[in-house]
Amino acid sequence: MISDDLLKKIDEKQSPCVVGLDPDISKFPEQFLRRTSDFSEIGTAITAFNYGIIDAIHDLVPAVKPQIAFYEQYGAPGILAFENTIAYAKSKGLIVITDAKRNDIGNTSKTYANGHLGKVETSQGMQKSFDADFLTVNPYMGMDSLEPFVDVCKEYHKGLFVLVKTSNKGSGDFQDRLVELTDEEAIVLCDLGFQNSNTLNKKTELYNLVGMKVNQVAQTFIGERGYSSIGAVIGATYPEQAEILRKIMPNNMFLVPGYGAQGGGAKDVIPCFNEDGYGAGINSSRGVLYAHLKHNSPKKFQEYSRQAVLEMNLDIKSALKDANKYPSTWD
Amino acid sequence: MISDDLLKKIDEKQSPCVVGLDPDISKFPEQFLRRTSDFSEIGTAITAFNYGIIDAIHDLVPAVKPQIAFYEQYGAPGILAFENTIAYAKSKGLIVITDAKRNDIGNTSKTYANGHLGKVETSQGMQKSFDADFLTVNPYMGMDSLEPFVDVCKEYHKGLFVLVKTSNKGSGDFQDRLVELTDEEAIVLCDLGFQNSNTLNKKTELYNLVGMKVNQVAQTFIGERGYSSIGAVIGATYPEQAEILRKIMPNNMFLVPGYGAQGGGAKDVIPCFNEDGYGAGINSSRGVLYAHLKHNSPKKFQEYSRQAVLEMNLDIKSALKDANKYPSTWD
Repeated sequence: MISDDLLKKIDEKQSPCVVGLDPDISKFPEQFLRRTSDFSEIGTAITAFNYGIIDAIHDLVPAVKPQIAFYEQYGAPGILAFENTIAYAKSKGLIVITDAKRNDIGNTSKTYANGHLGKVETSQGMQKSFDADFLTVNPYMGMDSLEPFVDVCKEYHKGLFVLVKTSNKGSGDFQDRLVELTDEEAIVLCDLGFQNSNTLNKKTELYNLVGMKVNQVAQTFIGERGYSSIGAVIGATYPEQAEILRKIMPNNMFLVPGYGAQGGGAKDVIPCFNEDGYGAGINSSRGVLYAHLKHNSPKKFQEYSRQAVLEMNLDIKSALKDANKYPSTWD
Repeated sequence: MISDDLLKKIDEKQSPCVVGLDPDISKFPEQFLRRTSDFSEIGTAITAFNYGIIDAIHDLVPAVKPQIAFYEQYGAPGILAFENTIAYAKSKGLIVITDAKRNDIGNTSKTYANGHLGKVETSQGMQKSFDADFLTVNPYMGMDSLEPFVDVCKEYHKGLFVLVKTSNKGSGDFQDRLVELTDEEAIVLCDLGFQNSNTLNKKTELYNLVGMKVNQVAQTFIGERGYSSIGAVIGATYPEQAEILRKIMPNNMFLVPGYGAQGGGAKDVIPCFNEDGYGAGINSSRGVLYAHLKHNSPKKFQEYSRQAVLEMNLDIKSALKDANKYPSTWD
């Protein structure tokens, strides 16, 4: 189960941190910008920069999370840089989470899933394409839209993070709406300890409903360590909501964006962890990749990125200790 | 305004039909399959097949809708085929709707938007990347997640179709949930003629709320013909819901999947049209692309695709006539 692999890496590195690989050439160290006149040259620059970052941080974190938008914008050369980045990160022993928030129905969902996680047919047999370990997906189209993704994960030893409660200010527009539940759904929430059975509440926020449904799908897919390969995206900026979702989704890993640049602090992400200190991967992108900018020191971008990861690891671990959630086997 | 351009093409072709370019090599005519041993060869085969389809149907429909999943699965060579397909369709005077259901927040949304619709920075200045005319997007993350897409559309004369009520069976899982509205929102629905002000209902299905919010954003962006460049995706398989959404979203073009292969008939899509006979683009993918399979006649794939489009045009136009919604200026 890929969730077990991720937990193993988290223990190996004694870190629940994820480095987001979101290339923004306007923030690259100048030595990568000598040739950026077309998308092909930019793709090469992105690949080189990412390799440098991966070299600098691969021994400190369990996983990296490339955000595909920043590659896709450059067309085919951008996608080539994306493929190179995934392959290099995996060669360095990192788990790769593709942040793509893909979503569709039926055969189209299956096609996305096979491309990003599984294999694709050619006349020479099935071939791997992007071959990431995890993919983020969007649940708006309904649970049947997620099924083909889940099926491909089962076939190819892969995982998902489903958007549940996102980190942006406007995430409440739809996700926070109170929705009416069926009796059956209300009882499930009740059984999860979420509410009192004497005053069965037949309403909850949409994100809780989505979380509950994702947890149900995830039950068929739980690893040795008790976590499913089907996880959830929960923004660091909503700690109170995360606390409730942690109860509704006890077996799901949370991928947590919003730490650092988006305003989430270490204390804010603590509710995303279970009592055992596991269950969350905390992402930082800009704070790590472009740490050199604060020091005006492009040549030393690797040192400063490494330092930023070390600081983040300390920050989260110290908050875990304060919350009595520090994993028992860590130093 | 791109909505005006789309309406002009609809009038030119006297057709509201859209051909979905969803390449599935297992259904390609054999002459395209001589070399498909790797993704690069498959990309070439897809490009050649799509050019053949576009040649066969470009004078019959206003727009094509490539679904990016079917290209993306082949990595960089697949994306190259996608780029080639868009460029060729535009050279033949077709409006191009990229079906990608992209979604993210802030700078990442902007990056997707610039890549698919706008321009991307290089050291030689801003360059077009995919340069489609419309992009489909997913609203689950909230209205602020859509704003960067809207901004790029305004800057570059482009448009969006936002998922509102999708065609799949499970679309109701979340989209059909009754959600609680604020007083203000309930009054907006009331003003749109959706409900009686004497019995102000403070609940509606999530898709109606999403539709209402999309319509509000769309108001700043209405063309000469009265339609906004911000449209909605409404599945052909839900005619009753479409009828209500047509009232809630009078100024929005509807992109309508689900006709044909997914079970929606011509009668089912009629509620997606306004009384004037405009306001909807009806998509068919498999029914057109792989029409040759029914006739076991791969060599004549262009003739059979053309015939399928002609039949679809007749089918929809005849249903528009029956419903007294036939555009007054058409033959």
